[in-house]
Amino acid sequence: MQTVSWDSEQLALRVIDQRLLPAELRLLTLRQPEEVAKAITDMAVRGAPAVGVAAAFGLALAALRSAATTLPSLLGDLDQAAAMLRAARPTAVNLTWALRRLMARAAETSTAEPDAVRRALLLEAQRVAEEDVKTSRSIGQHGATLIADGDTVIHHCNTGALASVGYGTALGVLRTAHEQGKRLHVLVAETRPQLQGARLTAWELRQYGIPYEIIVDAAAGHFLRSGKVASVWVGADRIAANGDVANKIGTYMLALAAHASGVPFYVAAPSSSIDLGTPNGEAIPIEERPPEEVLDLQLHGRPVAPAGSSARNPAFDVTPAHLLSAIVTEFGVLRPPFEISLQQTRREARP
Amino acid sequence: MQTVSWDSEQLALRVIDQRLLPAELRLLTLRQPEEVAKAITDMAVRGAPAVGVAAAFGLALAALRSAATTLPSLLGDLDQAAAMLRAARPTAVNLTWALRRLMARAAETSTAEPDAVRRALLLEAQRVAEEDVKTSRSIGQHGATLIADGDTVIHHCNTGALASVGYGTALGVLRTAHEQGKRLHVLVAETRPQLQGARLTAWELRQYGIPYEIIVDAAAGHFLRSGKVASVWVGADRIAANGDVANKIGTYMLALAAHASGVPFYVAAPSSSIDLGTPNGEAIPIEERPPEEVLDLQLHGRPVAPAGSSARNPAFDVTPAHLLSAIVTEFGVLRPPFEISLQQTRREARP
Repeated sequence: MQTVSWDSEQLALRVIDQRLLPAELRLLTLRQPEEVAKAITDMAVRGAPAVGVAAAFGLALAALRSAATTLPSLLGDLDQAAAMLRAARPTAVNLTWALRRLMARAAETSTAEPDAVRRALLLEAQRVAEEDVKTSRSIGQHGATLIADGDTVIHHCNTGALASVGYGTALGVLRTAHEQGKRLHVLVAETRPQLQGARLTAWELRQYGIPYEIIVDAAAGHFLRSGKVASVWVGADRIAANGDVANKIGTYMLALAAHASGVPFYVAAPSSSIDLGTPNGEAIPIEERPPEEVLDLQLHGRPVAPAGSSARNPAFDVTPAHLLSAIVTEFGVLRPPFEISLQQTRREARP
Repeated sequence: MQTVSWDSEQLALRVIDQRLLPAELRLLTLRQPEEVAKAITDMAVRGAPAVGVAAAFGLALAALRSAATTLPSLLGDLDQAAAMLRAARPTAVNLTWALRRLMARAAETSTAEPDAVRRALLLEAQRVAEEDVKTSRSIGQHGATLIADGDTVIHHCNTGALASVGYGTALGVLRTAHEQGKRLHVLVAETRPQLQGARLTAWELRQYGIPYEIIVDAAAGHFLRSGKVASVWVGADRIAANGDVANKIGTYMLALAAHASGVPFYVAAPSSSIDLGTPNGEAIPIEERPPEEVLDLQLHGRPVAPAGSSARNPAFDVTPAHLLSAIVTEFGVLRPPFEISLQQTRREARP
């Protein structure tokens, strides 16, 4: 079972609807690029790597569904679809990266027939998906060197199989350490407002047999001060050239608390999350999502906020590079100064 | 309408059941000290000042309900009741303070008849309640000097009329500033797990006509970094001799984020929250509450955590003194070094 997979009979993208988990495991079948964009906007598909792969298939679907009979006309349709998909999650750069990679593939085939481009884009999207699993495994191997037997760790949001094609980034590191026989205990930050920690990470950890306890996000500092937490693990939606990291809201406060207690704070992400074109965190657009995500909540069956309340709902925040101990990519464990280590990594990686 | 009030006809304590707000405004009638202790444990009554006043009436109820016919026997019953009430909320020192004050009152009347002690304790509990309102008003006056017209502030948990007898501490400061005609905008941290911010503070602010928006606790850092927040306001459950503050879980991470962005962080509390007998935060007991408070939550009508999940639920955390800009009490605005300013304040206050 994969979070994002291609159905070659129906020529459609199949994704797990993550809004329904853990209560229900349901697959969505997406046949149009607009449906892919909507699934990303609505957070049926989420997690920067998974969103990147979904967007790649979204562009392949745009090519398949386009009625264009000439190459310029097809490329025009692809440009439109790419713009629509890019707007679906402005913060995560994996999306832009995947679209750029497919558009480059389309440009390479510029002498070919439209159908050849359609085949090439679908193959390239499948390659992006396959590489994502390999990349996750490599991140896991490198990151697991930072985990010791018996560690208690804090994990924010969901960065597991559900956030990627099938293994995970930060949660992939914890899975690898667990598979190596290291005993782990995970304090799962519930990750308001969408509760990806309590809903998705807890659901995954149960399946892997890794012991965990859920905490409210605001309790992380208390546990970090206790001296019983060995390290903190998060993913990334975008890593700027200077090492500033945009990630799920709450990452910044968690990093501050880890730093204040001298607990290592690790970001695990594929090199496709590195965006050397963005100089620092201030240049990263932060998606603000509907207030209902904060307000639509029931406690003991009762609504929470008084009727007529409004809310602010930034979905991401920026953690400045100086709060990070290391960034783990498929190429290894990057240490400060990140300006240099990130450039080296990006050179090793595919464009 | 008061959060905690004495019904002199029924000889009973009437409290607003804060677990039901904002959906329902219901009063509980508490006739036995055991019922008062349970209302505190179950968080029907909450907020350090309100808990102190409720405990004072709880002890008065213990005296009224005691069948003792001799003074030693009555004092024995009071000792037992005080121990039970004290255990209901170990972190908040106002509870211990109120009980000690009533026990001292009982000791003063040691030559009297049991009924005279009963009357004296009820009068003393009523005095504690009346003073609480005056104290809140003074805190408001002193604190409002730290608020400028047009300020956007962040507020955590609930520290308003619901957390005291009738006006509030940190929220009382915001009310006073509002009453002075200063325009305010409050970012209300929802305060997981019990959501006192989204449920209670939002409910109060609506009534006072103070504009607000609710945010998830983990978003505070993002707004603090934006440069648009003038100050952060919280209450206190206990202030140690060195200025370390125990308060609702999440206060510590909020203080770290304010400090990192150079935004003033203010604690507003009555002098009865100061505990010179506790040298520092490490000596403050932190109540850990049932995991169900974290787990029993529905998002869009669906349960959140997978069945069988467990949770950790520390209800309070400790913010080290060096992160505080000032502590506002009914005697004024205390600045560092708090070791000295807290001692002076405690000397001015009633024992």
